Amino acid sequence: MPGHGASPQREMRRRNLSRVLHAVAEQGPCSRAAVAARLGLTRTAVSTLVEELLRGGLLTEQGTTPPGGAGGGPGRPGTALVLTDAGPCGLGAEIGVDHLAVCAVDPRGQVRARARLESDGRDSDPGVILTRLRTLVDEVAHQARALELRPVRLAVAVPGLVARGTTTVVRAPNLGWYDTDIAGALAGAGTGDRPSAGAEAHRTAGGKDYRTVGARKGLTAGALSADALPLLVDNEANLGALAELWLDSGRVPRDFVHVSAEVGIGAAVVLSGDLLRGTRGFAGELGHVPVRPDGPRCVCGGRGCLEQYAGEIALLRAAGLRADGPRDAAFTALAERAATGDTRTRDALEEAGTALGIALAGTVNLLDPRAVVLGGALARFATWLLPALERELRERTAAPGVPPTLVISGLGAEGPLLGAAHAAVRVVLDDPLSHLA
Amino acid sequence: MPGHGASPQREMRRRNLSRVLHAVAEQGPCSRAAVAARLGLTRTAVSTLVEELLRGGLLTEQGTTPPGGAGGGPGRPGTALVLTDAGPCGLGAEIGVDHLAVCAVDPRGQVRARARLESDGRDSDPGVILTRLRTLVDEVAHQARALELRPVRLAVAVPGLVARGTTTVVRAPNLGWYDTDIAGALAGAGTGDRPSAGAEAHRTAGGKDYRTVGARKGLTAGALSADALPLLVDNEANLGALAELWLDSGRVPRDFVHVSAEVGIGAAVVLSGDLLRGTRGFAGELGHVPVRPDGPRCVCGGRGCLEQYAGEIALLRAAGLRADGPRDAAFTALAERAATGDTRTRDALEEAGTALGIALAGTVNLLDPRAVVLGGALARFATWLLPALERELRERTAAPGVPPTLVISGLGAEGPLLGAAHAAVRVVLDDPLSHLA
Ligand SMILES: [Zn+2]
Ligand SMILES: [Zn+2]
Repeated sequence: MPGHGASPQREMRRRNLSRVLHAVAEQGPCSRAAVAARLGLTRTAVSTLVEELLRGGLLTEQGTTPPGGAGGGPGRPGTALVLTDAGPCGLGAEIGVDHLAVCAVDPRGQVRARARLESDGRDSDPGVILTRLRTLVDEVAHQARALELRPVRLAVAVPGLVARGTTTVVRAPNLGWYDTDIAGALAGAGTGDRPSAGAEAHRTAGGKDYRTVGARKGLTAGALSADALPLLVDNEANLGALAELWLDSGRVPRDFVHVSAEVGIGAAVVLSGDLLRGTRGFAGELGHVPVRPDGPRCVCGGRGCLEQYAGEIALLRAAGLRADGPRDAAFTALAERAATGDTRTRDALEEAGTALGIALAGTVNLLDPRAVVLGGALARFATWLLPALERELRERTAAPGVPPTLVISGLGAEGPLLGAAHAAVRVVLDDPLSHLA
Repeated sequence: MPGHGASPQREMRRRNLSRVLHAVAEQGPCSRAAVAARLGLTRTAVSTLVEELLRGGLLTEQGTTPPGGAGGGPGRPGTALVLTDAGPCGLGAEIGVDHLAVCAVDPRGQVRARARLESDGRDSDPGVILTRLRTLVDEVAHQARALELRPVRLAVAVPGLVARGTTTVVRAPNLGWYDTDIAGALAGAGTGDRPSAGAEAHRTAGGKDYRTVGARKGLTAGALSADALPLLVDNEANLGALAELWLDSGRVPRDFVHVSAEVGIGAAVVLSGDLLRGTRGFAGELGHVPVRPDGPRCVCGGRGCLEQYAGEIALLRAAGLRADGPRDAAFTALAERAATGDTRTRDALEEAGTALGIALAGTVNLLDPRAVVLGGALARFATWLLPALERELRERTAAPGVPPTLVISGLGAEGPLLGAAHAAVRVVLDDPLSHLA
């Protein structure tokens, strides 16, 4: 983040370096001339900025641009600029209900290292889970460094509500975590340091105490020590939506609602390319939109919420499958039964699709988005969910014209992890001055 | 609007003049020093800008500032700056289902002239209604000019969907207007010109044809002739929400959902002080959020929408009152019966409050706003609606902590008209260079 009191000249330089990096990221390999044209800067100005980024190891030069291709003028071959694949990198982590996952993404957006651990997180001790996660982060950071990559930030996706601008998981019912600040337990993760004795999850009693282990040591969340990676903690649905926005801009517009169905059902609203976080950071709770107000009691205290029809547990139970065993096996069984035309399974999926359609019709009537993206674990069941979902959307959307486009996520359950890693590495593009070699 | 190709110096001047006017508008009468402190500009710079605004008739000087009071330094009396009340003004108009209303607001935000006409708009001919409205606009403009005010813009609130950035009412079911561009019929209104023969509502057959009478004459919508006032057309719920934001900032925060209940039920979502319009301009259709998905059929094609329980017609019918007669009489009867404890009336209001609570719980779960503002015709029934509404909100909001504050609008049914007039006059504050005398 830009420091306070930085000179206007330095801010301008930071901003222009960032614009050059974003231009190269969006265009792919391209010439200095193409960057200048895109940004409306002179070639001289762009050359100065590019030289600094080349020297600082954030850009590199690559072969020659194809004549008339992505950048150079017709018949004018030259070297093409690309983002480095051997400099800073972002670490993304995911705390799932049945697994932990970590990956490293380079500034080009390529996943360069990853690790996954089956780990039952239901009603878990945050200290135990976060110690496991820390080991996994260290492992991926080690792999990344072996590839000449330098982790600069760690972003963690969690299946719960995160208080806006903090590292505190306010509520993750499927993990059984409440008011859990995860910064302490992850302090120093990915840097090669070993966890200190005091680095364990700090669970506070009430909902108001957002102190962290780091804070008690006189450090602030997000920058726990000179060596620690800055830490970003966000809801999995938010990071999944950002992954769609950043990685699938061909199909996903800049105004959309992203449904992220895992054990719970979350959503994220993106408007003009910005995530709507809500006053406290709790926006997107699609799973608790009332669908049938007199329906079954929900964990949230309400009745007949979407999650009671389209949530994983409700769906598996309605299909006659066990909901407390391994998730992968249960979903595979569900998919097989649906494929063979099993009536009970098809009915359960139709009921889930209907409930999704009712909740999304309300959402569309409120927000008028350009698209609805179906992501997370439910994306693989789109074939069976969609007829009912589309019917409800069509019948219940009030505005004239066609309802928003329905897009099935290509990232599926990978979205939150990729979104986290990309959120972590994008800090390099946004603030290159802090990451020059 | 700032012209294309304006010089950067002129843009900077426009921006700084606007900042000075907004500072005076927000602070009330204040000294040059107070403006400089607020904007972080030098006193010299502010003095130059203030002189230009005084010469141009947008600011005036008033008596002396109270020592230590709203602006001057302690014990340093001087003249206070105030916005003019004798320069440009905005005209706001409202097309209601049973009335037309117009008012003029000066740059201080004071209503200086107004007119109202009972006019049955149900299933009406837009040409007839707009001719009446035009007469009313001319009348108010005449009153305003007699007060040395100069109308600079006309904004019209309509009970229906307006295609974003156009003057076309795409759908207003309670008026029976579809794809109706109202610019032609209002061309020249408020300028003293008489309507030309061709100036009547232009109704197109399909949903795609947004040509206007003006456009066919080679003019563009929003600036129909050299003399015509620029025209802004917006949904009544949007303008009602902006009125809350601009006129009641003490109670209404900058992130809220505004419920605007007239014959239909609309809503507007304001985030960080900006109105969420949606991709096509159709956001805020709270009235068609499904409440009981198997409930009664709705005009939108859905079933069990909020409007089927809390809409005016549904509410009056449930209370055993006629819904096709004069609205004022019906609402007065409803209020009287509720006050005397009539069971059927109380039940109808409780059912409406419950339905509002269910739809708003979903909205709050999705958007996490800081407040919900209950406006429009239902505001006067708050006493009877609120217990059920608050109960549903409390039980069905998923996030921990207290649900958003519930605010009963102080503007009530006046909101859309005031919002329109304020939207019209704010153009002077936003773009003072175009309105200097
Ligand atoms: Zn719930
Ligand atoms: Zn409806």
